[in-house]
Amino acid sequence: MGQWIDRAFALFEEQQRYRGIDVNWVKQKLTGLKIETPSWGYGDSGTRFKVFQKVGVPRNPFEKLDDAAQVHNLTGACPSVAIHIPWDKVENYSKLTEYAQSLGLRIGAVNPNVFQEDDYMLGSVTNANPEIRRKATQHLLECVHIMKEVGSDVLSLWFADGTNYPGQGHIRQRKQWMQEALAETYKALAPNMRMLIEYKFFEPGFYHTDLADWGMAFNAATKLGPQAEVLVDTGHHAQGTNVEHIVAYLLDEGKLGGFHFNSRKYADDDLIVGTTNPYELFLIFYQILEAGRDKNENVRKTAEHIAYMVDQSHAIESKIPAMLRSVLNIQTQYAKALLVNHEAVADAQKRNDVLGAENAVREAYEFDVSPLLAVIREEQGLPVDPMRAFLESGYQEKIAARGVGGSSW
Amino acid sequence: MGQWIDRAFALFEEQQRYRGIDVNWVKQKLTGLKIETPSWGYGDSGTRFKVFQKVGVPRNPFEKLDDAAQVHNLTGACPSVAIHIPWDKVENYSKLTEYAQSLGLRIGAVNPNVFQEDDYMLGSVTNANPEIRRKATQHLLECVHIMKEVGSDVLSLWFADGTNYPGQGHIRQRKQWMQEALAETYKALAPNMRMLIEYKFFEPGFYHTDLADWGMAFNAATKLGPQAEVLVDTGHHAQGTNVEHIVAYLLDEGKLGGFHFNSRKYADDDLIVGTTNPYELFLIFYQILEAGRDKNENVRKTAEHIAYMVDQSHAIESKIPAMLRSVLNIQTQYAKALLVNHEAVADAQKRNDVLGAENAVREAYEFDVSPLLAVIREEQGLPVDPMRAFLESGYQEKIAARGVGGSSW
Amino acid sequence: MGQWIDRAFALFEEQQRYRGIDVNWVKQKLTGLKIETPSWGYGDSGTRFKVFQKVGVPRNPFEKLDDAAQVHNLTGACPSVAIHIPWDKVENYSKLTEYAQSLGLRIGAVNPNVFQEDDYMLGSVTNANPEIRRKATQHLLECVHIMKEVGSDVLSLWFADGTNYPGQGHIRQRKQWMQEALAETYKALAPNMRMLIEYKFFEPGFYHTDLADWGMAFNAATKLGPQAEVLVDTGHHAQGTNVEHIVAYLLDEGKLGGFHFNSRKYADDDLIVGTTNPYELFLIFYQILEAGRDKNENVRKTAEHIAYMVDQSHAIESKIPAMLRSVLNIQTQYAKALLVNHEAVADAQKRNDVLGAENAVREAYEFDVSPLLAVIREEQGLPVDPMRAFLESGYQEKIAARGVGGSSW
Amino acid sequence: MGQWIDRAFALFEEQQRYRGIDVNWVKQKLTGLKIETPSWGYGDSGTRFKVFQKVGVPRNPFEKLDDAAQVHNLTGACPSVAIHIPWDKVENYSKLTEYAQSLGLRIGAVNPNVFQEDDYMLGSVTNANPEIRRKATQHLLECVHIMKEVGSDVLSLWFADGTNYPGQGHIRQRKQWMQEALAETYKALAPNMRMLIEYKFFEPGFYHTDLADWGMAFNAATKLGPQAEVLVDTGHHAQGTNVEHIVAYLLDEGKLGGFHFNSRKYADDDLIVGTTNPYELFLIFYQILEAGRDKNENVRKTAEHIAYMVDQSHAIESKIPAMLRSVLNIQTQYAKALLVNHEAVADAQKRNDVLGAENAVREAYEFDVSPLLAVIREEQGLPVDPMRAFLESGYQEKIAARGVGGSSW
Repeated sequence: MGQWIDRAFALFEEQQRYRGIDVNWVKQKLTGLKIETPSWGYGDSGTRFKVFQKVGVPRNPFEKLDDAAQVHNLTGACPSVAIHIPWDKVENYSKLTEYAQSLGLRIGAVNPNVFQEDDYMLGSVTNANPEIRRKATQHLLECVHIMKEVGSDVLSLWFADGTNYPGQGHIRQRKQWMQEALAETYKALAPNMRMLIEYKFFEPGFYHTDLADWGMAFNAATKLGPQAEVLVDTGHHAQGTNVEHIVAYLLDEGKLGGFHFNSRKYADDDLIVGTTNPYELFLIFYQILEAGRDKNENVRKTAEHIAYMVDQSHAIESKIPAMLRSVLNIQTQYAKALLVNHEAVADAQKRNDVLGAENAVREAYEFDVSPLLAVIREEQGLPVDPMRAFLESGYQEKIAARGVGGSSW
Repeated sequence: MGQWIDRAFALFEEQQRYRGIDVNWVKQKLTGLKIETPSWGYGDSGTRFKVFQKVGVPRNPFEKLDDAAQVHNLTGACPSVAIHIPWDKVENYSKLTEYAQSLGLRIGAVNPNVFQEDDYMLGSVTNANPEIRRKATQHLLECVHIMKEVGSDVLSLWFADGTNYPGQGHIRQRKQWMQEALAETYKALAPNMRMLIEYKFFEPGFYHTDLADWGMAFNAATKLGPQAEVLVDTGHHAQGTNVEHIVAYLLDEGKLGGFHFNSRKYADDDLIVGTTNPYELFLIFYQILEAGRDKNENVRKTAEHIAYMVDQSHAIESKIPAMLRSVLNIQTQYAKALLVNHEAVADAQKRNDVLGAENAVREAYEFDVSPLLAVIREEQGLPVDPMRAFLESGYQEKIAARGVGGSSW
Repeated sequence: MGQWIDRAFALFEEQQRYRGIDVNWVKQKLTGLKIETPSWGYGDSGTRFKVFQKVGVPRNPFEKLDDAAQVHNLTGACPSVAIHIPWDKVENYSKLTEYAQSLGLRIGAVNPNVFQEDDYMLGSVTNANPEIRRKATQHLLECVHIMKEVGSDVLSLWFADGTNYPGQGHIRQRKQWMQEALAETYKALAPNMRMLIEYKFFEPGFYHTDLADWGMAFNAATKLGPQAEVLVDTGHHAQGTNVEHIVAYLLDEGKLGGFHFNSRKYADDDLIVGTTNPYELFLIFYQILEAGRDKNENVRKTAEHIAYMVDQSHAIESKIPAMLRSVLNIQTQYAKALLVNHEAVADAQKRNDVLGAENAVREAYEFDVSPLLAVIREEQGLPVDPMRAFLESGYQEKIAARGVGGSSW
Repeated sequence: MGQWIDRAFALFEEQQRYRGIDVNWVKQKLTGLKIETPSWGYGDSGTRFKVFQKVGVPRNPFEKLDDAAQVHNLTGACPSVAIHIPWDKVENYSKLTEYAQSLGLRIGAVNPNVFQEDDYMLGSVTNANPEIRRKATQHLLECVHIMKEVGSDVLSLWFADGTNYPGQGHIRQRKQWMQEALAETYKALAPNMRMLIEYKFFEPGFYHTDLADWGMAFNAATKLGPQAEVLVDTGHHAQGTNVEHIVAYLLDEGKLGGFHFNSRKYADDDLIVGTTNPYELFLIFYQILEAGRDKNENVRKTAEHIAYMVDQSHAIESKIPAMLRSVLNIQTQYAKALLVNHEAVADAQKRNDVLGAENAVREAYEFDVSPLLAVIREEQGLPVDPMRAFLESGYQEKIAARGVGGSSW
């Protein structure tokens, strides 16, 4: 790419100017896109059949930050790192925060884990056993406390709660217990904090999941108040679900709080972002950018404060390159979405010109945005090809010294 | 069955008494179950490949009532008939209402049709063309007017509105237009009227559907007020969706208004109720009956006022027998659900006894309820085998005189 | 695009040369790609809810050829037209063939229709009634006869045969009847003719479909002999199915005969090709091109003689532009697939380098191939933007004189 | 149930006699139904999120046999136990076989495991690395050897082989490698041995699975020869797949070798058999029994030699009761299927009587077969309620002494 950047970008710029797209604005937006990476994305994970252990996997939260810093240094796009408690539990959170800062990072969303202790086998905040419900809620509150210590403003909630068999649980009662736990936690939030509520179609519950779809998460968030919003994990839907429709809907309601990005073809496959159906990712960004132009200020604000997070599981891939690939793919699709000429779309929509409107959206997708991304990276002093830069950096070889058996997740 | 009814029922009664089930209460509930049949279920319908025309299909709304009366006379369970406007448009609605009464029937839900005129090709209340939106809303208002004329208290709304391609429509704007039309219609409702809002995963829209899932219908209904509720069509979900979970959820919110019952294996197949996965229908009724026992009065009331309606499409079946089969299958699964011992389920749930709870629900499903249904029919003076009674009645032969080409739908 | 073609193509060519891609070979392959359009794609079609009638729809097979000629004249890629019998039945097939030739076209695949007569309601070649089975098989044989008259060498078979309910049909007996009909038809084929057997997951059968998946079509074709092959309709699979895997599998077996291209998000949506998940189309072509390089001659030959056909249903779109859009989208994805560097992929695969292999495939997809396509069109004397050329041609206005109500399908 | 058995069974018998069903034949068939349980079903298993460890889980293959013997002793239906190598690897297989015999059991299918060693991360017999392919094939051959030692006649093959990303693997080459490994293993089979080839839609491969559907397994088996057949795991299909159609198809081809029974609502949920959609299980048995009456001897023989095996994963349930529940549910649905009057079905099918044929199948499903099962158990000297008998036996308490942490799987 190197040798063609200037010519290619000059051509790209002319073409976009001709289409009425302000490339400076596009560059500004692209540079502004920040994507949070998850600490657990640097550790081992797998399927129920096997967790393959990789060499060089971080052995503690500090090493996870080391790896996350690599991704940020190479892309300039990943300044924050989500943590999972108790996976990232440390004695002294100031030390963790300071270490992050020393690497140019900050701690992002705090993710409570209420699914890996034996007590939670049949539910956490929805468990029929009141002591287990209490314990789970206490953990949520503890995480709010940790947020304060690490300077986080996002509490990211996913519950594995659900049942495997008809009759196993009292569905409505569990719904109410869920709301009670959320309400108690909500009250503990500081004014600058947001609670993001994630939903999931199925797994590990195979009959019902207490927060099974966006509607349940949305209704819970609406009852709680303005600091509660919905988190969309792109892999948590039934087959065929139009995810960008849900995104648009939540934006219109001012309730879209963030994303867990990953790819899927079948279930919650948790693959590298943008590897299965990249057009879907483009269309999600198209909806967000469209909402960002709305006349309604609340919609615009919602579109602007979305927390973009990667959440994927590297069963077979090298961890850091897989994370880099996700970040690069997100940037690619976001860049393409920035090329949509919204006036052209709106004109065609108004005329009920089906093919014209479809074309106005798709045509942006068909541009090659690599010259644009290369120039932006150059301007920021970043490597033009972050993946190659990483592979050539020797970092992977260096961390091999960590050996096998680093803490998974 | 005839020769064994008494012995079989005696045995059944003893078994249920032993299980703690009050058979008199069961009989009372079963007798109280009323299922509305749709006028369009007596006409021709089909797939996009072909509408096969049957002999004897009704030629006008009055003949549809004649057929519906057959189903009611044989089952005692179907006293009301849903109508579709303009399919069932008549000059004089009093005449229609009186004719229904003369047959022992009444007009049930009124269903506006805003999808079969050329104007609606790209949407009705969400069309980019304001004149078409106006026309569609006017039709909704007209239907409220017709409700008053025919004494109906349910406005049943399904919209084919959606798009086929990314970019084709402005998703959020369409959402707002939908809400505006609903709000204007809602205002026109008399105090005794309910508006039931149906959702659908896809078809005829193949990219997005404006009311795509229960969450969208629920949110619309919540904004409108207490007279607006959600209508669950059992065939309008993504594959794998836990429909009884949605039912329980809406009950808990006091927002479950009614059902369109039918069967499906793939998409919105609109088959005879209870022929694909009868256990699902049982589990839906289990959730309803469970809610009917709740300590919360609002939940109990919601469970009691549900509008049960059949909505199926007979592409290949004889119309009246297909409708009868649906009604009989609904009664069968409802009867089984009435045999669930809720205390036993609750006990096992409290103990987190997964297998015990599952068993307590499933065991009710495994009873043969035909002796119970036979006795109830006898007690009401109805034929013990309504299907055989119909086939032997000569009615099918009589209506053959109508010929082919009766008004479809 | 016009003003940048030369610069853009020069840049493109340099980049590809650097990647080891021979652009002349790419151009040759692209020019050689021929896509058959279906006569019924120019007529009205719709959903079970409504067939919206368009102005200017062809009134007979000759006018369908007129429209198809437009698509071919503008793209140079669509020299043949599939016909459907009896929709395209004419008294004198020589006249039809000659008319096609006068337009620069030829008749392509012949498609028997055994699903729109009342007799076929419960099956055609699998009907329990032997007279209907006979009638259906006779129609297949008649179509072989028509093939001879119109010079077609492809018999394209799709059966709507299936059932809606458990027990409705004897599944295994129907399987045998299907094979008998196919065998009788196979015998009638001339040595230059191929029989392509299409499968479909569901619809219009909602319980079972006699040829439900590639495995059933493949097994039938294998038993028949070398002139029988499988036809893959891209919309005829269960959600999540990896279509390119099936394509690769059939190529490896030497049994991939052709495609019916269209797009889908939910069921058999029959949308414009390449509008839902364009990456999937790219990956299909990647598998075909990969097989085209195989050391096994039979695999190579199979890859080369594939019949590419569009089969889509324009419920809401203008017919000719919709067909053009499909053809253009196919060319775009094929062009991208031609840019895959197979050696690079193979090297990474050999090293078990997951991310490297994935990247080697995806990187081809990310190029903008519009300069390439523009140059190829210029070189062939075709309009650089066929869609615009059509819209500006006045043809649509001219055919408006046909009025509404042209024969659908 | 106890107190009503005699009256209930007498009634049942009269009813069936009236329907033309020979209850003695039914009893004989039911008594003849043998279901193999898997050794790994008695150990811990879970989801990728957590394997919850239970108290009392067996610590070695001998203790697994102890548990399996409980299930057989209580049901009389589970005389054989499938083993998984190397999970059940022992130094002396004679000792294992003798121990099984001492418990009234025998070793059933041998299941090679080529997915849990690090080498197999990117495939076993389809790995790009020839040494890994060799190692995997050697393990298959070793398992054939073990079959001889333990007296097993079924080699049950499931491969986790697949890829997560487009391009990751050479799909067709992997297909050929798969066939080579199968062929080499096939050659090693003794004449009395069968090789059952399992397929799976997805997981752990999330892009493609080398044996993804019945068609691929069937084609592989056909090429191998008569000792290779297809194994249907009821949870390994795409949503909506008509499993009983596949069963019927394979029976007709003489290639149905066996089942892995379990329940699923979403993906490969591996739940207790018969808890999600019991009607589907009934319909599977209906197809098998129908084939068992065929005039074609090969079809009849195929139907008779099917290996019925349970394969489920108990993430949250007590192991032995969960296995018992599956066995009981299989017996229930098999018993119902035995009540289908095939002549009645055939008559209705011949007349193209859709509703009559559907009814003739469904009516068998609606009987309560618990009196029948109770009588059969009594006649065999088994407990009428095996679940209660187990819970009251004290066995669960006894094995608690094993503690936690028994070898999973």
